[in-house]
Amino acid sequence: MTENEKSCRTTITVRYAECDPMGIAHHSSYLPWLEIGRTDLIARAGRPYRELEREGIFLPVVSLSLEYRRPVRYDDRLLLTTRLVILSPVRAEFRYRILGADGTECTRAVTRHAVTGRDGRVTRMPDPVLALLKPQVCHENPPLE
Amino acid sequence: MTENEKSCRTTITVRYAECDPMGIAHHSSYLPWLEIGRTDLIARAGRPYRELEREGIFLPVVSLSLEYRRPVRYDDRLLLTTRLVILSPVRAEFRYRILGADGTECTRAVTRHAVTGRDGRVTRMPDPVLALLKPQVCHENPPLE
Amino acid sequence: MTENEKSCRTTITVRYAECDPMGIAHHSSYLPWLEIGRTDLIARAGRPYRELEREGIFLPVVSLSLEYRRPVRYDDRLLLTTRLVILSPVRAEFRYRILGADGTECTRAVTRHAVTGRDGRVTRMPDPVLALLKPQVCHENPPLE
Amino acid sequence: MTENEKSCRTTITVRYAECDPMGIAHHSSYLPWLEIGRTDLIARAGRPYRELEREGIFLPVVSLSLEYRRPVRYDDRLLLTTRLVILSPVRAEFRYRILGADGTECTRAVTRHAVTGRDGRVTRMPDPVLALLKPQVCHENPPLE
Repeated sequence: MTENEKSCRTTITVRYAECDPMGIAHHSSYLPWLEIGRTDLIARAGRPYRELEREGIFLPVVSLSLEYRRPVRYDDRLLLTTRLVILSPVRAEFRYRILGADGTECTRAVTRHAVTGRDGRVTRMPDPVLALLKPQVCHENPPLE
Repeated sequence: MTENEKSCRTTITVRYAECDPMGIAHHSSYLPWLEIGRTDLIARAGRPYRELEREGIFLPVVSLSLEYRRPVRYDDRLLLTTRLVILSPVRAEFRYRILGADGTECTRAVTRHAVTGRDGRVTRMPDPVLALLKPQVCHENPPLE
Repeated sequence: MTENEKSCRTTITVRYAECDPMGIAHHSSYLPWLEIGRTDLIARAGRPYRELEREGIFLPVVSLSLEYRRPVRYDDRLLLTTRLVILSPVRAEFRYRILGADGTECTRAVTRHAVTGRDGRVTRMPDPVLALLKPQVCHENPPLE
Repeated sequence: MTENEKSCRTTITVRYAECDPMGIAHHSSYLPWLEIGRTDLIARAGRPYRELEREGIFLPVVSLSLEYRRPVRYDDRLLLTTRLVILSPVRAEFRYRILGADGTECTRAVTRHAVTGRDGRVTRMPDPVLALLKPQVCHENPPLE
């Protein structure tokens, strides 16, 4: 897998309920989209996140940042690219870009995650899960970003 | 407690994020408000709903209906009244009215609930919980409030 | 178009953010899904709903009802079918069914809509829009799909 | 007004619908809370934000960051403090802290805003609005509250 292939691509169509009185997607609507990007990337690695949770491995968000460069609107089709950029037994970091239908960059984002058990306590990611996710880690910053 | 006193009153202020491109509260935003009404009514009975869930008693919604008579807008202060109208060991029904700041009726709603355990299977509400909630049941349809 | 072909089919994948502490999709999460069904059905008729709004034609929800027969969970792939069952210059009614991946019926819903202008006042749907939507109206209740 | 008095205090009660399958408030749920903090702070300055929008002054979020230090749960009562820390005719920055009922810090956040007109184009905040908001600007970083 080349560095570029490690970016996971997801298409998002903006829902009416996600837009606010300014007529644009509300800034909180983006976070569930990023979560879809993570879901897709982890599923591609071979074990869906829902199964990780069933085995008692949780990846709660511990910090995040977003830059909203251009607003998006109801029914816009967006291209979300998700990259796993840091992975260790105790943490993970994902980076995201959202492009509009015309290829313009709309949003950049970063989310950082802890690894916890069902009780919310910090734990270590088991080696087999780590081994599955390792090949997804993107080591270089692809151009453009 | 008179029948009228059994109505639980909650003030809701419409959030910006709850409004859509029409400039009015999105129709899905009302459901979390009704949930606040139920939370308040059950807490008033003496055992908060969060404790019921800790004891393994869940009240999932099995059906609901809403009538949207007048739209509401960002920063509107609404008066939500919640009544428990049916209660048995296996089900509950709540009825709601939302009034605007000027007393105009904006919305009517009904939610029906099953009683389940943590695993989602239908169960019976324990007698002590039933005994707590019984006095909250409103037996008559109060006149327009 | 046969009556059956008039049902518009949309695939919905349940988002993590749409699920609640019971581990199931929160009952409010379904309303944005139904909105996607309407968006798809209207787009198929030849003029996307976002264009109707630009022309000053809005279809706000005036009432709705849902029956939740089986819960759905994070990452479940659902099949939503949407039918337009009533259409007049001043109102519209849609009916919906949500099936799980195994074909089990999970949810039934109805939404009723007024026709308003940008100012929220009741208006009449222009004849060309009505003519576009008419062929989508489903006159019979299809058998269980 | 002392620097400390410039912090605007808002009580938030966590809604059931805001919590996810981990049993904690979903990380996207915090953004509408921060918006309530801004609404309260701007209203205290003498002109509610809804009136600013009516006059064609919008403050869209252009970037934000959050640190989630401790999770919060359904029915938790939180204390949100909001400070306006940067204000110019073309931008504003707010900082936030969320404390749990026991005074523990749960979350820190920053949101940065542009000033735009109804059409989304960058504009300048009119002098009278700027004059109203200026006294709310908090010039020092208050000690841990």
